[in-house]
Amino acid sequence: MDGIMTILEMDDALRAKKVSSLELTNETLRRIAQENSRLNAFITVVEESARARASAMDAELSHGIDRGPLHGVPFAHKDLVYTKGVRTTGGSKIFKDFVPDHDADIAVNLENAGAVMVGKTNLHEFAYGITSTNPHFGAVRNPWDTERIPGGSSGGSGAAVAAGILPFATGTDTGGSIRIPASFCGVTGLKPTFGLISKRGVMPLGWTMDHMGPITKTVRDAAVAFHAMGGPGAVPSKNADIRGLRIGLPVNYYFDTLDLEVSESVRTAVQTAAALGARIVDIKVPDIDALNVVGRMLLLVEATSVHQRHLNRRADIGADVLTLLDQGRLIRGSDYVDAQRLRRIYCGEFSKLWSEVDCIFTPTTPTAAPKIGQMTMKVGSVDEDVRLATTRLMRGINVLGIPALSIPCGFTKAGLPIGLQILGAPRTEETILRVGAAIEDATGVVGRTV
Amino acid sequence: MDGIMTILEMDDALRAKKVSSLELTNETLRRIAQENSRLNAFITVVEESARARASAMDAELSHGIDRGPLHGVPFAHKDLVYTKGVRTTGGSKIFKDFVPDHDADIAVNLENAGAVMVGKTNLHEFAYGITSTNPHFGAVRNPWDTERIPGGSSGGSGAAVAAGILPFATGTDTGGSIRIPASFCGVTGLKPTFGLISKRGVMPLGWTMDHMGPITKTVRDAAVAFHAMGGPGAVPSKNADIRGLRIGLPVNYYFDTLDLEVSESVRTAVQTAAALGARIVDIKVPDIDALNVVGRMLLLVEATSVHQRHLNRRADIGADVLTLLDQGRLIRGSDYVDAQRLRRIYCGEFSKLWSEVDCIFTPTTPTAAPKIGQMTMKVGSVDEDVRLATTRLMRGINVLGIPALSIPCGFTKAGLPIGLQILGAPRTEETILRVGAAIEDATGVVGRTV
Repeated sequence: MDGIMTILEMDDALRAKKVSSLELTNETLRRIAQENSRLNAFITVVEESARARASAMDAELSHGIDRGPLHGVPFAHKDLVYTKGVRTTGGSKIFKDFVPDHDADIAVNLENAGAVMVGKTNLHEFAYGITSTNPHFGAVRNPWDTERIPGGSSGGSGAAVAAGILPFATGTDTGGSIRIPASFCGVTGLKPTFGLISKRGVMPLGWTMDHMGPITKTVRDAAVAFHAMGGPGAVPSKNADIRGLRIGLPVNYYFDTLDLEVSESVRTAVQTAAALGARIVDIKVPDIDALNVVGRMLLLVEATSVHQRHLNRRADIGADVLTLLDQGRLIRGSDYVDAQRLRRIYCGEFSKLWSEVDCIFTPTTPTAAPKIGQMTMKVGSVDEDVRLATTRLMRGINVLGIPALSIPCGFTKAGLPIGLQILGAPRTEETILRVGAAIEDATGVVGRTV
Repeated sequence: MDGIMTILEMDDALRAKKVSSLELTNETLRRIAQENSRLNAFITVVEESARARASAMDAELSHGIDRGPLHGVPFAHKDLVYTKGVRTTGGSKIFKDFVPDHDADIAVNLENAGAVMVGKTNLHEFAYGITSTNPHFGAVRNPWDTERIPGGSSGGSGAAVAAGILPFATGTDTGGSIRIPASFCGVTGLKPTFGLISKRGVMPLGWTMDHMGPITKTVRDAAVAFHAMGGPGAVPSKNADIRGLRIGLPVNYYFDTLDLEVSESVRTAVQTAAALGARIVDIKVPDIDALNVVGRMLLLVEATSVHQRHLNRRADIGADVLTLLDQGRLIRGSDYVDAQRLRRIYCGEFSKLWSEVDCIFTPTTPTAAPKIGQMTMKVGSVDEDVRLATTRLMRGINVLGIPALSIPCGFTKAGLPIGLQILGAPRTEETILRVGAAIEDATGVVGRTV
């Protein structure tokens, strides 16, 4: 089955009156009905209100009211974004019947942009994990291989977009939760600069590291969705020019600790960028493992601050999340503050890189998607814990708060997608989106559909 | 003995060539020699370099180089401000021989302004307390009654200015450490908006609540010193106009829990402001006791983060500070984060007040200075812990990060000074200094000398 159109294709088709928002919405609902028993990507579907909303958006268009490129486009919210009157579970049994009385800021923004919400996507419980193997709402499955995880915590959003059900879903990213599903599902995920997109009305996990962002099929769609969420900048033009742009390649970061197929794909993307006129610069990045330790420590403490009130309902919390919440209670306040101090030092060191390069290329994850239930996996020749390995190249980025884009850059021989991570200085989303669009145009990887 | 001239009086005299910086500096050094054995206000005096610096400043003036109102004015740094080549103890035995190899930003700024540093003032150990009864460098004594504490932690700065030794000394304020000595010593202390004055090169205590500011004899001197430190705004004009300004009087804050003489003095200041044309508005402030609890919790954790590396030298740390550092180890990271979350909520509530009023009057401390060694004291009819009572009206202000000025507003029958605290919205130092100057002009309280 072909995937559904992209946001920009829908935009063209709607304006050319080749299709209506109601037709697009019905097609999305049909695909959900067809695919969801297999993928478990949605916790809630709002057929009736989606159709009513789509009709209203069609009526506006026919009266010459145009809210921009998302007008009439079906999408879904990760199920920790408050949606007024629509239950918002956070992937938790504790919130399985929770219906917010107000919308999150991001829901208001996307509503104002004319988008049509069709439902709420499944996720790792409390967004606190990377598998999206949810014990209460079922394991989300990877459309490329349903025995494998889609990544998480925004696993339902990644799977839904990868399966061609809809062009766009929201995500949150505290330690990779947008970029990991993007990498494992072969779609695009943008984690913007910390604080740029409002988090009001979104269930928190780690205040100082939580980010909102879009998961889409294409880079230009990510730009459109990012702007509708409140981000600044322009959508990359058709032939995005990256000549002379300095792309940093960390020599001390990963190439010796990666799956070989992953490192080859990333090298190919680097060559593509070079062929497009970018300048490749070898750089040394500050100790990324230390940054990861800082990030894990901060998150353990902050997540326990959020959820310790639920620790009297131990039977209603999944074993992995419960363990993390308990671990968070063991960390001293003064050690948390020490970690925040270290964070500031690393941020200062990392920021010096931006005088040498305009963006940095890394793999998103060291491997393609592991299997559901798998606890360890081979990375190169080493057996690693799945959670630690998967977050290793990105948790530190949340500590830094810099923008990061993940786009597909190839496939393993087994046919699983591989992700490229593009990092930029704070508030340079426009640059990293331009670079991503140029590579996407040159390679056409995302043209492939599950 | 009359006190030494104010900054602005020195400025006039220097420019009129009635006096030289060297003469002013020698006079300050003479007063230190005469008073310090009684007051213990200084840990280090740098006679030689101060005289050299004063002569250099005189030479500049005679060559037409004028660095502004602090040019040639003697002053002292609280002894936790890094001074290149001059030992900086932090009031601690552990740092008794520590000589920094660089200046704090604030030291650079005051040097650039032409001020002449004569020495380093005594303080509560690590700035972690309000008595300035320092176990390593001797108890600082209150010039108004040497059996009493000067307040702290900037006790040496407060005592030196109150005793008329010099017109100005620097202070730091994490939970009242500038305002408490200002109140107990009958001088002026300004805690500016959080983050406005650089803290680089100043020994930290609680990162999220530490502030730098001046202790001076007059409000206009505080404005001059604040600007030289890097603060914005103008010095209040001679007849500062406060007509129509809305002054908030918290009805739920203190009047029932104060020493009677203190509440009467504050009411008199309110009447003075009203007579000058200000509008007095009764307001309700958010729960200040809860804010204090938040502040104590944050400080216990942050101070332990700073100093836990010294806990292997228990014999070298005073009993009160050691207890606080040990207590800080008992607080969980998640409870610290909870306190930061509460802080944000209170900041939001408090900020709503600024649509109703331009500034808020409170007493600085609920009583005048207690005796050295006194652990509890009567506040009204209640016996209270000296530390808790003394910080009760100001620790929360550090949690909020808003600017606060303390000026003398009267004396007890026993002849001890009483402080008025003037609070303003973030970055409204110019407003609260103007209000303070108007009251100072009208009452002339500070004209009295010890």
